[in-house]
Amino acid sequence: MQFTAKDIAFMLNGTVEGDPLAAVSQLAKIEEAQNGSLSFLANPKYEQYLYTTNASIVIINNDQQLTGPVTASLIRVENAYSAFTLLLEQYNTLKLRKAGIEQPSFIHPSAQIGQDVYVGAFAYISQDVKMGNNCKVYPNCYIADNVTLGNNVTLFPGVTVYFDCVIGNNVIIHSGAIIGSDGFGFAPKTDGTFSKIPQIGNVIIEDDVEIGSNTTIDRATMGSTVIHKGTKLDNLVQIAHNVEIGENTVIAAQTGVAGSTKLENNVMLGGQVGIVGHISIAKGTQVQAQSGVSRPIKQEGQKWAGSPALPYGNNMRSNVVVSRLPELEKRVLELEKIITELRNR
Amino acid sequence: MQFTAKDIAFMLNGTVEGDPLAAVSQLAKIEEAQNGSLSFLANPKYEQYLYTTNASIVIINNDQQLTGPVTASLIRVENAYSAFTLLLEQYNTLKLRKAGIEQPSFIHPSAQIGQDVYVGAFAYISQDVKMGNNCKVYPNCYIADNVTLGNNVTLFPGVTVYFDCVIGNNVIIHSGAIIGSDGFGFAPKTDGTFSKIPQIGNVIIEDDVEIGSNTTIDRATMGSTVIHKGTKLDNLVQIAHNVEIGENTVIAAQTGVAGSTKLENNVMLGGQVGIVGHISIAKGTQVQAQSGVSRPIKQEGQKWAGSPALPYGNNMRSNVVVSRLPELEKRVLELEKIITELRNR
Amino acid sequence: MQFTAKDIAFMLNGTVEGDPLAAVSQLAKIEEAQNGSLSFLANPKYEQYLYTTNASIVIINNDQQLTGPVTASLIRVENAYSAFTLLLEQYNTLKLRKAGIEQPSFIHPSAQIGQDVYVGAFAYISQDVKMGNNCKVYPNCYIADNVTLGNNVTLFPGVTVYFDCVIGNNVIIHSGAIIGSDGFGFAPKTDGTFSKIPQIGNVIIEDDVEIGSNTTIDRATMGSTVIHKGTKLDNLVQIAHNVEIGENTVIAAQTGVAGSTKLENNVMLGGQVGIVGHISIAKGTQVQAQSGVSRPIKQEGQKWAGSPALPYGNNMRSNVVVSRLPELEKRVLELEKIITELRNR
Repeated sequence: MQFTAKDIAFMLNGTVEGDPLAAVSQLAKIEEAQNGSLSFLANPKYEQYLYTTNASIVIINNDQQLTGPVTASLIRVENAYSAFTLLLEQYNTLKLRKAGIEQPSFIHPSAQIGQDVYVGAFAYISQDVKMGNNCKVYPNCYIADNVTLGNNVTLFPGVTVYFDCVIGNNVIIHSGAIIGSDGFGFAPKTDGTFSKIPQIGNVIIEDDVEIGSNTTIDRATMGSTVIHKGTKLDNLVQIAHNVEIGENTVIAAQTGVAGSTKLENNVMLGGQVGIVGHISIAKGTQVQAQSGVSRPIKQEGQKWAGSPALPYGNNMRSNVVVSRLPELEKRVLELEKIITELRNR
Repeated sequence: MQFTAKDIAFMLNGTVEGDPLAAVSQLAKIEEAQNGSLSFLANPKYEQYLYTTNASIVIINNDQQLTGPVTASLIRVENAYSAFTLLLEQYNTLKLRKAGIEQPSFIHPSAQIGQDVYVGAFAYISQDVKMGNNCKVYPNCYIADNVTLGNNVTLFPGVTVYFDCVIGNNVIIHSGAIIGSDGFGFAPKTDGTFSKIPQIGNVIIEDDVEIGSNTTIDRATMGSTVIHKGTKLDNLVQIAHNVEIGENTVIAAQTGVAGSTKLENNVMLGGQVGIVGHISIAKGTQVQAQSGVSRPIKQEGQKWAGSPALPYGNNMRSNVVVSRLPELEKRVLELEKIITELRNR
Repeated sequence: MQFTAKDIAFMLNGTVEGDPLAAVSQLAKIEEAQNGSLSFLANPKYEQYLYTTNASIVIINNDQQLTGPVTASLIRVENAYSAFTLLLEQYNTLKLRKAGIEQPSFIHPSAQIGQDVYVGAFAYISQDVKMGNNCKVYPNCYIADNVTLGNNVTLFPGVTVYFDCVIGNNVIIHSGAIIGSDGFGFAPKTDGTFSKIPQIGNVIIEDDVEIGSNTTIDRATMGSTVIHKGTKLDNLVQIAHNVEIGENTVIAAQTGVAGSTKLENNVMLGGQVGIVGHISIAKGTQVQAQSGVSRPIKQEGQKWAGSPALPYGNNMRSNVVVSRLPELEKRVLELEKIITELRNR
């Protein structure tokens, strides 16, 4: 699809300077833009790019002064950053516009499907599923018996949701994520073998949650594993059974939270963090990448780092000393020699 | 589905106290149970919940004394815990009851399929596959050429098994797990590029193994990567080519075992552990979460922790000192000052 | 399939010693070979296995001397190792020979499909996809709108490629890998919630790249996440948005590279490594397993280890001291006592 400067100015309620028929088919950063791209300039720090960019169209603020010749067509608007973000969103919506029920797909007759949904080919919707309006279920997704999806839910290709799980409104789940597989629960027997503890709970994902690719969230043994409202999980994250993740929490890639642990609201976990089971993490806690938290965190809003995790500053100071430990050991050895010498005086 | 106290008492060979028509449709812990739930009390420590629970039915031991009024209907049995576990298993079996060959699925004419199997829509069963009785292959699974599945194998949706792999009896593999993808083997060439070393071995998974969601187990270069009997792998675990994992071993989420390493029986690895390649880990070894094992472990039944891993107690003691390293460094500096002073006396 | 010694000698331009009708159906290491297996002996160190092996056929060098009786049929060739590798490759090619368009699959009428491709059942090829010659798209793969695949691309079962991504020639992607899912980008709002930053860039994978099972590579916010030519990624690797990975780089399993980071050519990352975002890693850098790199690496060809990463030797020396920290602390305490004593003299 191509759009002209005139079209875009109309959409954004802006005014064109230069060729109104300049056409673009993609969006790019001003410093990377090629011919045929639309870009924007909002931060005066980057003004120089305005005179060197290969973009065909650049959106600028109404009050932007020009101090040299510009080859791109310009569109002046009240707020260039907001205008560009609006275009990004529209572009994305356009790219992801899918509709209708493709064939062959499998929809159990007992499933209740809302209005204006997309169900891709090879998607499987089981018995007693309830799906709200405007949902998109891409190809190769599997939605098991008795799962509930709210409105505006997007399941990208290859998502699996096990039975009885509940997914709220406006939830986005990326490809390969697994919701509701069995928690890792086995009881050791006297002969060294293990017997499986049935995992009959479910997973509840509240509104406005986004879940990354190949992330796994296990169902509760009994009760629910819960991801509260507004929380964002990155790729390859592991959430174990009976975990509860608070609202507006952000968890970066490859992090794992062990069974029955509870994160309060507004927590931020870096990548590759591990949190042990059966503890509680206070509101607003921030944990640095690769840290390991093995004890409850009770004080709110603190930063932690290291494995085992220490308060952020302490960890930084310890790390510095670790890097010069061999030297420190030598200093101690030196002291011991001198002391021996002094004692023998 | 709903069951009455009378029905359940009949199943468990128990006796009802209270309303025999009290009905339940789910199972829950006594402290979390809602109206319509069935729960149990086995541990006298939790007796107080018996008088406050919202459960509609509670299973209790024959010898349980009551010290207050109870609103739930009670079912008395010999062993409340065992009886409840039995119900959990029956509930789970009921939830996972699937049968028949759904359409469209792909079953190669040369495949040998046992009795009483479930093959979901969009499942793919290739040439020369042999599948035992009572297997369940959920939708979107792929079973490649010449794979063998024993009896009572469950592949949840979206499992992939590459060619020639062998899976024993009673194996459960959760969604998104990949069995038998190529080992990571590349020979460096003089120009800096790599040539792929063909990976023509397979993966053998013995009886009673359970494998978590999105776990990956690579095929051997030649020979077999083996997961021995009774072993349980959690989600997002990585098992590299030519690894051998002993019997009744438990590996928590996000742990990785590098190529050609051998774990003896009854090993326990915490989450996010890494084990280097080409080493052997003695029977009964336990490794704490986030540890890194870079050397063979020869002594049986020991606990290890840290990266690089140390004997558990040593690691704990070192960690304590790490947390006060800045202070230790200051003490050494102080000593150096005093010593200089003493020497100059 | 079975092959005789005579057949194989003909393929390899070798000569048979022993039974020309000895037949084999698999390839194995000489020390592990069973009856019916073909093996090879190239390294004189392993000569003793020649006299004890159960292999039915062994390939040896023309100049190999025999110092005892051999039960296997022998095939003499110029270079036994090269000859065996050739057979490995042919075996692998044979095992992976797939052709034609299976039904039901979904191919959008606008898709351009090259010659001699394989499209498995339940594979989905969207609008405006361009696919080169000799590609194999296994069952349950999803290729989104406007994706380009070069020639000789193999997508094993269950690979998902999001819209607009570009994949070069001779690329191999293993099962469950997700290419082009949204980068993890959210802007915090004043009320503590997050707004999603649209991720409208793509992923570019250049020629000769191999990507492991369940690995995730996120699309750029704008522009491209790029995996350059000849690079090999293991299983469960996370590559964040706007990352650029250089040529002939090797990344082991469960490693993560955070957003906008750039790896130069010929980098090697061990397993479970973490690299923070927005840094650059110099050419030829090697990072040990489980390390965490939080600062740019500017000097080429250096080895790093630890979390946070130090130069390899420094890390090794620090680790040694860490393991005896409790003892070091005692020595300092001892010194303090003596000093006090000396001062009071």
